Amino acid sequence: MQTNHYPWKGCGTDKDITGCRFSLSVMSDHYVEQILNGLQQVNLSKVWHHTDALSTIYRGKRIHVVDAVKACFVEMNDESTHITLEACFSKGCPGDLDEDHVLARDDNTVNNRIRHFPVLCKIAFYPLGVEDYMDHIAYIVRLAMEKGLYKNVSHYASELQGDVNALFDYFNDVLAYAEKNINHYVLQVTLSINSPTKEDN
Amino acid sequence: MQTNHYPWKGCGTDKDITGCRFSLSVMSDHYVEQILNGLQQVNLSKVWHHTDALSTIYRGKRIHVVDAVKACFVEMNDESTHITLEACFSKGCPGDLDEDHVLARDDNTVNNRIRHFPVLCKIAFYPLGVEDYMDHIAYIVRLAMEKGLYKNVSHYASELQGDVNALFDYFNDVLAYAEKNINHYVLQVTLSINSPTKEDN
Repeated sequence: MQTNHYPWKGCGTDKDITGCRFSLSVMSDHYVEQILNGLQQVNLSKVWHHTDALSTIYRGKRIHVVDAVKACFVEMNDESTHITLEACFSKGCPGDLDEDHVLARDDNTVNNRIRHFPVLCKIAFYPLGVEDYMDHIAYIVRLAMEKGLYKNVSHYASELQGDVNALFDYFNDVLAYAEKNINHYVLQVTLSINSPTKEDN
Repeated sequence: MQTNHYPWKGCGTDKDITGCRFSLSVMSDHYVEQILNGLQQVNLSKVWHHTDALSTIYRGKRIHVVDAVKACFVEMNDESTHITLEACFSKGCPGDLDEDHVLARDDNTVNNRIRHFPVLCKIAFYPLGVEDYMDHIAYIVRLAMEKGLYKNVSHYASELQGDVNALFDYFNDVLAYAEKNINHYVLQVTLSINSPTKEDN
């Protein structure tokens, strides 16, 4: 086995780069147009961006990355089509690069989409390299409860539900907490709208 | 803030339970029928199973969980519809339960789907609670290279590509390695088939 190839060897960055890699799924024959249209509506002046065959990646300051992902998701919602957004927010990987980022000088968000619609959501939070990771997970679960977003515990994820704005505000709060307390972390979320499956529990 | 509610407090299990929580996305107007049909084709005699509005969960011995998820994905492929599978394989969570599992006595898989088609894939591996987590990630990335599945490094994930059988064999190998070497871990994967986006890089 090859032993001298570590893609991250000698890498890592001290820059304030939060990233999000997200994949949009549109349960419709017209998925290509809907995804491209959503992506094109986002003001990308404050994030670095790249789209490949699997995902789109935004990199920049936390608040602008969350603002851009939220804008894309909000733009996609036509109030009828079942759409999911799978997103991995992350910061601090020892293999991260100094490149591929836009770091705005201010925190004035440029998208600021305000629309209200209900979202079903699952999240999993992975603080890496620390033994007390369950304490950090406990913190963010309690935060969801406090904000009235917690639906129930499930295997391998916590289920949340709430208004799209409240959920993205919560993601930003989780990432702000993580930024202060953990060197390397991942927040994995899946958002679902207009699903034909209704649950009462 | 409520401080006495930790859903996992006093939990954890010594049982040999690997789980997978996965979400299927079918980019077609007929997504409901295709997803339900895929799920119904799987022999579930050797895994515990539950489907909610966001995902399906299988829990049991590693080899049977991988066999069942693979069967579902293979059954879904009609050779034309763009489909993605987002899956979180996990074992060892301190909040896991003794309940909700089927633990077969043997390793004789009951689905054994053999079909050949190309899959584009991204993976991220999260060993939890250990400082040497990057070494474990290095191991599984090298394993993908050795098996000829590695496409390229990207932000927040490694991209793989290969035949569906080779990829699921690789997932099983990664989870077998993790089972031996790490108490709690997550393998997050997204598989994509029949995408209209073609890439040369």
